[in-house]
Amino acid sequence: MIGLCTDHLGLDLDRALGEWEGALEAARAGLLARKGVPGSFLGWMDLPEDTETLRAVRRYREGVDFAEDLVHIGIGGSSLGALALEEALGEGRVRVHPVDHVEPTPLKRLLDRLDPRRTLVHVVSKSGTTLETLSAFALFLDWLKKGTPDWRRHVVVTTDPSRGPLRRFAQEEGLASFSIPEEVGGRYSVLSPVGLLPLAFSGADLEALLSGARMANEVARRPLGENLPLKTALLQHLAWLEGRGITVFMAYSARMRHVPAWFVQLHDESLGKRDREGRRVGTTALPALGPQDQHAQVQLFREGPLDKLIVLALPLQDEPLVIPEGPGLPGFLPGRTFLDVLQAEALATEEALAQAGQRVYTLTLDRVDAYHLGWLLQHLMWQTAFLGELWGVNAFDQPGVELGKRLALERLEKDGRFQ
Amino acid sequence: MIGLCTDHLGLDLDRALGEWEGALEAARAGLLARKGVPGSFLGWMDLPEDTETLRAVRRYREGVDFAEDLVHIGIGGSSLGALALEEALGEGRVRVHPVDHVEPTPLKRLLDRLDPRRTLVHVVSKSGTTLETLSAFALFLDWLKKGTPDWRRHVVVTTDPSRGPLRRFAQEEGLASFSIPEEVGGRYSVLSPVGLLPLAFSGADLEALLSGARMANEVARRPLGENLPLKTALLQHLAWLEGRGITVFMAYSARMRHVPAWFVQLHDESLGKRDREGRRVGTTALPALGPQDQHAQVQLFREGPLDKLIVLALPLQDEPLVIPEGPGLPGFLPGRTFLDVLQAEALATEEALAQAGQRVYTLTLDRVDAYHLGWLLQHLMWQTAFLGELWGVNAFDQPGVELGKRLALERLEKDGRFQ
Repeated sequence: MIGLCTDHLGLDLDRALGEWEGALEAARAGLLARKGVPGSFLGWMDLPEDTETLRAVRRYREGVDFAEDLVHIGIGGSSLGALALEEALGEGRVRVHPVDHVEPTPLKRLLDRLDPRRTLVHVVSKSGTTLETLSAFALFLDWLKKGTPDWRRHVVVTTDPSRGPLRRFAQEEGLASFSIPEEVGGRYSVLSPVGLLPLAFSGADLEALLSGARMANEVARRPLGENLPLKTALLQHLAWLEGRGITVFMAYSARMRHVPAWFVQLHDESLGKRDREGRRVGTTALPALGPQDQHAQVQLFREGPLDKLIVLALPLQDEPLVIPEGPGLPGFLPGRTFLDVLQAEALATEEALAQAGQRVYTLTLDRVDAYHLGWLLQHLMWQTAFLGELWGVNAFDQPGVELGKRLALERLEKDGRFQ
Repeated sequence: MIGLCTDHLGLDLDRALGEWEGALEAARAGLLARKGVPGSFLGWMDLPEDTETLRAVRRYREGVDFAEDLVHIGIGGSSLGALALEEALGEGRVRVHPVDHVEPTPLKRLLDRLDPRRTLVHVVSKSGTTLETLSAFALFLDWLKKGTPDWRRHVVVTTDPSRGPLRRFAQEEGLASFSIPEEVGGRYSVLSPVGLLPLAFSGADLEALLSGARMANEVARRPLGENLPLKTALLQHLAWLEGRGITVFMAYSARMRHVPAWFVQLHDESLGKRDREGRRVGTTALPALGPQDQHAQVQLFREGPLDKLIVLALPLQDEPLVIPEGPGLPGFLPGRTFLDVLQAEALATEEALAQAGQRVYTLTLDRVDAYHLGWLLQHLMWQTAFLGELWGVNAFDQPGVELGKRLALERLEKDGRFQ
C-alpha cells in the first residue's frame, strides 16, 4: 500500500482535515460533477479500467517479433511518464530509446547505432501536430524507408482517436495505431498506450500497474479520513497558503529517478496559471532524489529560505542485499542491508529538514513495483485535480504555452536564424 | 566562445554594471585575496592548469586493456559533474555505469549484467568516509574478489591525497589511485580525476576540456565590461534582490541534459546558507531542459508566480542535419535543419517568458563540445564564487548537511528499522 507519514510535519493533520472538510468535500464534488462532461478532460480516471486497450497492446506486442530496439518519439506528456515507468519497471527485453528532443548530434548517433530491420518506431502526439515530434518522426521514417522493405511494420502511432495528421497518416498507410482518448490530456496519459506500449515491449507487469491505479481511484472516493489524495492536496494547499512557493518531490529510489520529472510537469502545467480572478497561482515543483540530493540540495533546504514543502517517497521493502565488510565502513554497518541505509538516510533527512523549519512529509510505498507505481502516479493525478479545485484553476488546460509555440513557428517560417 | 544575450532581460546591463562596479570589484578582490590561503578551498581555479594530472590519467588509461565497462561509484560532487560530462562528451568506448545510490534491486541488476574480468571500478570520495559510496564499494569489491584473480588491477581510487580510509586502503593494497587536491571541494572537483578519469575511458577530448576551463579563468580576470562571470553573478544578484527565489538553468541541448543537475548542487550547496548575520540567504536552482520543458514547466513560468530568473544555455552550431518530408509538417519545415528548430524554440521561449514578466537571459555556446563545456562549468564556478562574496556566505563549506549525516548514522547504529 501507499502510506502517509506526517510525524515531522509540525501540524495536526486530523484537526486540519476537520477545519477544511467543507472545502475539500466541495473540491471533490465539483471535480466529480464534471465527470463525463465533454471537454472536462477527466478521462484519466477511467484509464485504469480499460482492460480492452491493455489486451490490444499485448496482442500487438506479440505480433512484433523483429524488435530488439524501440524508439519512443514524443515530448512532455508523451514522454515523461513512459520514461519514468520504463526506468522503474522495464526488464530490458526490448531496449527503449527515448527521442524527446531535436538536437542533431544525438539524433544522428542514435540512427548510426540502430538497425532499422530490428527497430520499432513508436511516435506519440495527442494532437498529432507537435513540432519536435513530427520533425524527429520524419527523420526516423525516412531512415526506415531506406533501410527496410516493409517499413510499415516498423511504425506504430499513438495519437487522437480520429483527428490530426498522425491519425490521418496511420489510416492512409494502414499502420498499427493506438488512441489517446479524446478526454485524456497529455500529462494525464501515462496509463494509456503512451506508457503501456513501450512497457509491453521492455517487459513490465501491466496488469499490476493498472490494478494499482484502480486502487488509487478507490481511495480517492473514500471518506476524508481515509482519503490519501485529499489529505496530500490539503498539505500542498496549506503550504501554499503559508507562502511556500516550492514543492519538492524527492524519491528515495534510484529506480524512481525519473518520476520527479513526470510530477513536475503534472503539477506545474496543471496548476501554474491564472485563477478565475486573473491572479497568478501555483507552486513550483522541484525534482529531487534521495540520498543523492542530500549531497546537493539539502544544504539549501536546511539553511536557505523557508519556502519549501518537501515530500519524500520511500520504499519499505526490497531485496535483502547485505553490505559486506569493506574499507572505511563503520563497524556496525557490514551485515546490515542496503535498504537499512536507504531508509535511515530518508528518515534522518526528514527529521533534519523538519528541525530546520521546512514542511516535510513522507509517502511510503511497500515496494517499488508496477502495482505501487500505478497507484502513486494515479494518486498524484488525483492530488493535482483536487488542488486545481482548491486553487480555482482549470488543471486540464495549458493556455500559457501557446505564445511560445506561435513565436517559434513564425521565426521558422521567416527563416530567422540566430545572429 | 560563450556569449551572453540579455536582449529580453528588461534591464540596462551596462548601466547596472556601472552602479555595481564597486561591489563587484570588491567581490573579485576579496575572493582572489584568499587564493593560496589554506582552508579557503580555491584550488578549483588551478585544476585547468594541471596538465601533469591529465598525463597521469592518460597513462593509467593506456595501461588498462581489459575494461569494457567502468563502474563509477560516487555521490553528489563525486558523481554529478562526471555524469554531466560523460553524457555530453563520452564516445562510449568504455561504457560508464554510475552508482550514486544504495538501492538493492538496481545494484543487484548491475552486478548481474557485468563481467568482473572486463570491469574497472572507480570509487570516488574526497573524505573517503561517504557512507553510500563506501557501502556500494564494499559490494563491488567483494564481487571483484570473487570474480577475478587480480582484483587489484580492477580498482582505481580517487580521494584525498593523504587522508581518509580510502587513501589508506589504496596504499595498503597497492591500488592505482588519484587525488582530489586538498583545497578542492567535492562540488568544484569535476575537472580533477573525479571527472577526467571516466572521460578518459569513454573517450573525450580532455585537452580541449581543460583548455576551455582555462579560458573561463582568463575571462574571470578581465575588466568588468568583458567579464562574463561578474556579469552573470550580477544578474543573479539583482534577481535575488528583487525577491526572485528561483533560478532556472534550462539547457537547450539533449547532450547537456545532466548539466542542470550539476549546476543545482554547485549553486544550492554553495549559496543556500546563513550569512554572517545569521540570515537565511540563497536562491533555489531549478533544473530544466529545452525544448522538453516547454511542454512541462513553461506554462508555470508564464502564468504562475513571477519568482524566477531563467537562464537558457543554447548551442549555436551543430551537424547540419536536415528535416526530411514527413506527415503533418508545416510546408516550410522540410529542408530546414534540426538546429533551426532548436534555436527557434529557444528564442521564442526567451521572448515569451520575458513578455510574461519573468527575468530571462541566454548563454550561447558556439558548440556542445569539450572546449565549451569546460568553459561553461568553470564559468559557473566563478559565478558561484562571486555570488558567495556578494551574499556574504562561504561558498565552499556545507555546514547544513552534518545533522542529517549524524542522525542517519545514529539510526543505523541503533538498528532502528522503519516501522
